[in-house]
Amino acid sequence: WQGLKVKVFEFAKKVWKIGVDDPRKAMHGIKVGLALSLVSLFYYTRPLYDGVGGTAMWAIMTVVVIFDYSVGGSLYKGFNRTIATSTGGALALGIHFFADKSGKTFEPLVLGASLFLLASAATFSRFIPIVKARFDYGITIFILTFSLVSMSGYRVEKVVTMAQQRLSTIAIGVTICFLVCIFICPVWAGGDLHLLIIRNMEKLADSFEGCVGNYFDGSEKNSAGYKCVLNSKASEDSLANLATWEPAHGAFNFRHPWKQYLKVGSAMRYCAYCIEALNGCINSDIQTPEHTKKHLSAVCMKVSSEASKVLKEMVNSVMTMTKSPCIDHLVGEMNIAVEELHSAMRTLSDSITRSSAVSVSFVETLPLITIASLVIEVCTRVEAIVDSVEELAS
Amino acid sequence: WQGLKVKVFEFAKKVWKIGVDDPRKAMHGIKVGLALSLVSLFYYTRPLYDGVGGTAMWAIMTVVVIFDYSVGGSLYKGFNRTIATSTGGALALGIHFFADKSGKTFEPLVLGASLFLLASAATFSRFIPIVKARFDYGITIFILTFSLVSMSGYRVEKVVTMAQQRLSTIAIGVTICFLVCIFICPVWAGGDLHLLIIRNMEKLADSFEGCVGNYFDGSEKNSAGYKCVLNSKASEDSLANLATWEPAHGAFNFRHPWKQYLKVGSAMRYCAYCIEALNGCINSDIQTPEHTKKHLSAVCMKVSSEASKVLKEMVNSVMTMTKSPCIDHLVGEMNIAVEELHSAMRTLSDSITRSSAVSVSFVETLPLITIASLVIEVCTRVEAIVDSVEELAS
Repeated sequence: WQGLKVKVFEFAKKVWKIGVDDPRKAMHGIKVGLALSLVSLFYYTRPLYDGVGGTAMWAIMTVVVIFDYSVGGSLYKGFNRTIATSTGGALALGIHFFADKSGKTFEPLVLGASLFLLASAATFSRFIPIVKARFDYGITIFILTFSLVSMSGYRVEKVVTMAQQRLSTIAIGVTICFLVCIFICPVWAGGDLHLLIIRNMEKLADSFEGCVGNYFDGSEKNSAGYKCVLNSKASEDSLANLATWEPAHGAFNFRHPWKQYLKVGSAMRYCAYCIEALNGCINSDIQTPEHTKKHLSAVCMKVSSEASKVLKEMVNSVMTMTKSPCIDHLVGEMNIAVEELHSAMRTLSDSITRSSAVSVSFVETLPLITIASLVIEVCTRVEAIVDSVEELAS
Repeated sequence: WQGLKVKVFEFAKKVWKIGVDDPRKAMHGIKVGLALSLVSLFYYTRPLYDGVGGTAMWAIMTVVVIFDYSVGGSLYKGFNRTIATSTGGALALGIHFFADKSGKTFEPLVLGASLFLLASAATFSRFIPIVKARFDYGITIFILTFSLVSMSGYRVEKVVTMAQQRLSTIAIGVTICFLVCIFICPVWAGGDLHLLIIRNMEKLADSFEGCVGNYFDGSEKNSAGYKCVLNSKASEDSLANLATWEPAHGAFNFRHPWKQYLKVGSAMRYCAYCIEALNGCINSDIQTPEHTKKHLSAVCMKVSSEASKVLKEMVNSVMTMTKSPCIDHLVGEMNIAVEELHSAMRTLSDSITRSSAVSVSFVETLPLITIASLVIEVCTRVEAIVDSVEELAS
């Protein structure tokens, strides 16, 4: 019993933390409640109720189903729902008209066959990538509306009125959703994507510098930030997809190049893979002794700090969405540092040759050489990030 | 006009290819059509129609909304929908009862406040990871049912009958869905996850061997397979989540350790990151000349082929879900090869020292050393895969 109490308390604390860490999430809950309350007004106040008829439940359904955390998500679902309801309903009415002409015997057959064919085709179309990305939700609603209207048509005689009412109530639901979603503490998928890229780039800069620092001077800096970058593809893709539905907001235009963010994200991920391998080599069993490490210590740390500077300048560049004036200089500095590392590696060979116990020293340098080479490889990939960010900024 | 025709033709070819590559996708479309046709029988045949009343539309809605590509997806949505409809409806009836007692003035207030609070709380609960993973769809349905019942309660007097009818129609929809989904060409999320892991492991084995082979003997083998592994986390997570809903099927029990597949997947991804870095170093600008490469060529290729054998034995082990009897031997062979590579690297230093143009040769070996070290690192990560697979098989 005591154990249960502790567990419940722990759980409550976790839930509370979710809300405190990102108050927008708590706000989202309140927004949904508000939108539903607004819709329920159509139900509770008699004049409005008489206006839209008994189909007010479609407004409720619309609000519950399309209200999404981000504005982009709500707009995506809202547009999909509106368009799919219209086309599905219109198509069902058209087929209903033909079925009516074909006589009492054939009517159910025509309706049944058309339902089967359209539902199959529409379901299959979801496997087409572009349809999946843009109209997945719409396809569901299309099938739903088509089946409902084509079947109700067989029973209820006033199909057109019904369709009209349904559309108007859906329009009410969609409008309330959009208004609440856009004007009360809006959460923009585009803004979130923008922030995600910026934060990931900062993490990449810190963890690269941290990694190399930990290895060479034994400081205990946090170097795990790159791990967030490794698995961010799914969230980047979905945010970019939703962002394309959003209108201009803040510093972003309607046709903001969201796809380019994905390219930046992918370049960052390639860089993170390399940092991951670097981290693996740093934590490997076979280690270079400190006195040998010293030969490359200063220059490796210089390279990583220069690369980190480049990444941080890129963060600024993405943040302000302008081409950074000093980026060429910084990349130049980084490349100079890389050159210095190259020549330090060459000098290392001289010191090996001069030392007495030749073969031992050489073996000892192997992990160090690998790490230095990976540091250079990371710099190459940082340059790829720079290219993709410049394309974004232009 | 001609251009449009070509485009449409190209598109049609692409769509056709989707169906041919995986006929299960086309079958899925047909299955949805079939389930809808079955449900529509309740509408078209009068005795059945009279039995379930005018609420047959809830059965249609249920089929359209819960029919998912995989059995796990359908079961997940079906259970969520059933439970959420029951609890949401029951709660709404309970609150409706209290609101009724509180008098005409307070009734809308009580109903409105309860709607606002419950909708907000339920929406917020979606941000809790465990709720999100298991009950995301259920929360939507809970809010939906609660709002519909609590609002209809205010207008329609026969709330209980309505709720009963709705539940029975939903049960019909869910039953038809499950039957069609499970008994006609079922697509099991668990089986798909199993296959995905197996295929990815094969790709990993081939691409590692291919990568190293391409570098050392210039063969043009396909070595890009590891790229599929890099980004498979999202699909693995979603398949594993759906698989937990599935009953025993084929070789899998009900409580098959699907979570363990995620661990295997993650170990494979760590291996793939390293292969990615290796590939980056292989394609880098600075190259070791062929005559220097030769020193490590044979042994590196031996290591990669041993590692590939280990991975392929793991494929068998996952496929048959048994601990492989010869895996310890194979891992031993791989580690012997790694040891040989270590000593070959040591011998390399001797040949450097003996050669006349010392410093040049040493610089030339740098990329080779890095690549050899990364090959060793990949082997370490292959061992981690072996550990996770053994845990799965036991």
